Amino acid sequence: MLRATLLIIGDEILSGRTRDVHLQHFAIKLGALGIVLAEVRVVSDAPDAIASALRDLAGRTRYLFTTGGIGPTHDDRTVDALALAFGLTLVEDEETLAAYRASQGVASVDELTAESRRMTRRPSEAVMVQNADFPRSPAIRLVLPTGGATSTTDTGASELFVLAGFPRVAVAQLDAVLPLLETGQKVLSETRAFPVMESKVAAPLTQLVARHPAVEFGSYPQEPKDGKYETQVVARSTDATALQAAVKDLEGLLDK
Amino acid sequence: MLRATLLIIGDEILSGRTRDVHLQHFAIKLGALGIVLAEVRVVSDAPDAIASALRDLAGRTRYLFTTGGIGPTHDDRTVDALALAFGLTLVEDEETLAAYRASQGVASVDELTAESRRMTRRPSEAVMVQNADFPRSPAIRLVLPTGGATSTTDTGASELFVLAGFPRVAVAQLDAVLPLLETGQKVLSETRAFPVMESKVAAPLTQLVARHPAVEFGSYPQEPKDGKYETQVVARSTDATALQAAVKDLEGLLDK
Repeated sequence: MLRATLLIIGDEILSGRTRDVHLQHFAIKLGALGIVLAEVRVVSDAPDAIASALRDLAGRTRYLFTTGGIGPTHDDRTVDALALAFGLTLVEDEETLAAYRASQGVASVDELTAESRRMTRRPSEAVMVQNADFPRSPAIRLVLPTGGATSTTDTGASELFVLAGFPRVAVAQLDAVLPLLETGQKVLSETRAFPVMESKVAAPLTQLVARHPAVEFGSYPQEPKDGKYETQVVARSTDATALQAAVKDLEGLLDK
Repeated sequence: MLRATLLIIGDEILSGRTRDVHLQHFAIKLGALGIVLAEVRVVSDAPDAIASALRDLAGRTRYLFTTGGIGPTHDDRTVDALALAFGLTLVEDEETLAAYRASQGVASVDELTAESRRMTRRPSEAVMVQNADFPRSPAIRLVLPTGGATSTTDTGASELFVLAGFPRVAVAQLDAVLPLLETGQKVLSETRAFPVMESKVAAPLTQLVARHPAVEFGSYPQEPKDGKYETQVVARSTDATALQAAVKDLEGLLDK
């Protein structure tokens, strides 16, 4: 199975000031490519927290995405933390420097502010992934140096994509990254609703689960409406035939 | 600093089917008690994923909360994973059994369904935290058996609270748990907005940050409205006097 991990970086999420919008967006976009989000972590802006999470997650899944900690200010530390985590050297990206020069109408890199130049940094081994909407804000793409894997053809290694936290930029960056990803077997999903409390589906569902080993089932009680209960059962599989058989069986769940 | 970690359990969050509502709610409720949310993780319903995260997070922060994986069906595995992670024995909770008997109007435990009895399980070392709204759904409270700490007075140990994933139940459970928590120094926060791009505040803000070591600053560009930029700067501190001085300084950020 093709899997990914998402690392969301930002004190503003952990303090409750800002509500996360990345998790569900990544889950849906990656899911459409058959890439399963295996885990999500949210850590603070502190470089050691970011570096520790990056080291911990490297090599666990085929892809690792980060959002946040990208920007011109003192609290934007993701790129520094990345260098810290893996002993990487940071360089200024020529193409991004050119985009800054163009947008500020200056001929020389020396006329750019320190803050602008800070935004062009990437590990020397990384490449930038351009997006059409924000030419000064490419995503950073890097095969993480773990397990001796140093090439993008090493499927055992994690490939890292570093994206912004600002939602509109992250959306544009992810859209540009998606065509670069391997695609997996898409997880197909069907939902059926039953007008009962969840405890009423538990026993028959356990039997049904045993009959369909190629299908995963989730059971989700809904908020009662007008005092009426509803439990939704989701069946998921990469195997369309197995899913169809399971759904047929599921539709008769309460018929005994 | 008094810190907590939140472990959100559920395939439905990772698949994007359901949008998480717990993170921000916990952040705000805990923040009001001076408890800082240090990290959040989202993992699947798989018992080994839950157990691995529990073991990894035990002992890192004073409090560890889980949501999800609580219920009568086969995909509700948090309590089993907890037992697996720490080699704990599960028992049926007498008081919860009584609540089930009362709600179903049966005299004997033997008349309860297997699904109902499954919902009353807790590690033998744990206690239940009752809430007024859902007498059959108490939270589980347990001092995690790490570092030899086995008593609730061991402040070096993590205290675990296991809550439901269903939002209304989790809210009621957390409200019942909050009075049991130690309180820390509340982080005070002030926000000031500046009508400029974030890059314009970067240099003066770096200087201001250096002048106020007891205060943390975050800088957040806003979505432009009618082509007008805005950058919000948040100052945070547990020290009211230091915060006041920093905010006064912050208000003159662009005056040079």
